[in-house]
Amino acid sequence: MMEEIKVFAPATVANLSCGFDVLGCCLDNVGDEMIIKKNDLNQLRITKMEGQDLPMEVDQNVAGVAVKAMLEKLQSNEGFDIEIYKKIKAGSGIGSSAASSAGAVYAVNKLLDSPFSSAELLPFAMEGERLASGNAHADNVAPALLGGFTLVKSYEPLEVLSLPSPEELNVVILHPQIEVKTKDSRAIIKRNISLDKAVSQWGNLGALVSALYTNDYDLLGRSLKDDIVEPIRSILIPYFDEIKAISLESGALGFGISGSGPSVYAMCRGQQNAENVKASIAEFMEKQSITYDLHLSKINPEGVKIL
Amino acid sequence: MMEEIKVFAPATVANLSCGFDVLGCCLDNVGDEMIIKKNDLNQLRITKMEGQDLPMEVDQNVAGVAVKAMLEKLQSNEGFDIEIYKKIKAGSGIGSSAASSAGAVYAVNKLLDSPFSSAELLPFAMEGERLASGNAHADNVAPALLGGFTLVKSYEPLEVLSLPSPEELNVVILHPQIEVKTKDSRAIIKRNISLDKAVSQWGNLGALVSALYTNDYDLLGRSLKDDIVEPIRSILIPYFDEIKAISLESGALGFGISGSGPSVYAMCRGQQNAENVKASIAEFMEKQSITYDLHLSKINPEGVKIL
Repeated sequence: MMEEIKVFAPATVANLSCGFDVLGCCLDNVGDEMIIKKNDLNQLRITKMEGQDLPMEVDQNVAGVAVKAMLEKLQSNEGFDIEIYKKIKAGSGIGSSAASSAGAVYAVNKLLDSPFSSAELLPFAMEGERLASGNAHADNVAPALLGGFTLVKSYEPLEVLSLPSPEELNVVILHPQIEVKTKDSRAIIKRNISLDKAVSQWGNLGALVSALYTNDYDLLGRSLKDDIVEPIRSILIPYFDEIKAISLESGALGFGISGSGPSVYAMCRGQQNAENVKASIAEFMEKQSITYDLHLSKINPEGVKIL
Repeated sequence: MMEEIKVFAPATVANLSCGFDVLGCCLDNVGDEMIIKKNDLNQLRITKMEGQDLPMEVDQNVAGVAVKAMLEKLQSNEGFDIEIYKKIKAGSGIGSSAASSAGAVYAVNKLLDSPFSSAELLPFAMEGERLASGNAHADNVAPALLGGFTLVKSYEPLEVLSLPSPEELNVVILHPQIEVKTKDSRAIIKRNISLDKAVSQWGNLGALVSALYTNDYDLLGRSLKDDIVEPIRSILIPYFDEIKAISLESGALGFGISGSGPSVYAMCRGQQNAENVKASIAEFMEKQSITYDLHLSKINPEGVKIL
């Protein structure tokens, strides 16, 4: 039996345009590292927190809460020390809390000799999301645990599908470092929408799922639209329209808000195209007075990985 | 060059549950027959109308209007005689007008040596729907022309996708012979819906598209849900809840309203299962005082066919 494990806990893009609240994807080289060790104290502890100033009390930490839910389910009193090396910034909109929750339950599950499948780990990781946002959603923990593209079909019962990931997809992520709280970003969404817009949205989502199965990159681009949430949430994101226009002019297939923002994503075909899009965004952002991070990543088909 | 052609013009199921306004499928042995002949009069005529009492003036007939739109596009003054042998009852909710429009443009296109692809025929057939319902929708003409399952991704621009048809699918159609006008059935729909229900709906639609690509019959059944339109429109359909319960208890994968009703469909896996479902529905309907038709059909992967 392993006593210690080191994992890569990936960032994720949720609310992919027409897939608001259901569709997300997993990033490959943007994410945290975590080391989880068994201890002999029958106690769950967060023993290290680097990179971000986040709570270390188990009940206040998303990783702690997620692992606790899992151990309770197993009626286990095993002790674990969790070390978290955050690289994803909290509040960036690329699944910072989900990475920690998913990484922690994945790692502890491995150390316990895998009593659960990755899909079975979802409800535990979702408890971390409940702590982080008040809502036990699966938008980010699903792609973080399962990798690739995931579709949350339903919550009652919880059913998450893994969808294929066309190999040439690359994602450019821009994180403008302004604060947008998930709660605020949810609050401004209209709770009622027109049926006409809903029909357009599900037409696009159906087409997007088809595009993933058929490796139809152009169709994928034509489907990454959102006339419901993006027009409202984008108001909170500085230069959203400009950066969207620049990305699409530089050849991005599609562009939208990542999660509840403020990060935005540009979906691209091929690494060279993604490099071009990234360079164009950087050129624009250099002229603005906002600190930002820019990432370029392939889709990560595995999710959390052992390092 | 052919001078005359006889075609099968299939019935179709539109508004497939979560695919309201976007998803439809084509039936195999339920449909009309049409004979189209060239004439030397440079005149478009409806020369026969059997089975239903429908207008024979070209401008009042859906087939006439559709073919006229096509000939105008070609700037052709060729003359054609259209004979329509209706087996689909008008107002049944299984695409009676679409069958005539689609069958007519398909046949005339063949007689003209196919200047258009099937997809290019869609806008002409949609003109027939505009005449029939006041709305140039593609819900039924798309599956009638393209066969199998079709997804109307968008109208501006018009984009329709052909989706795979799992081979074992069989559809049972019940047409209770009460009158439900498409216009009335549209009028009672709420024009605004809750975002939560819309999200559930597009989660299901995404899953349904995935199920068609993966031949996952159970997932397909779990996805054929509609909490938006069905609860309202089903009020107009006698015994809807009872027949739905009977169908699902008899093993149907899913059940819902066909088009805008009053027909309902039960999607089944395998012919034997479909026969069971059909028998159970018949047993129930025999006790009621409503005249009805019951059909059982495979999915028709081709659409309109030359006979």
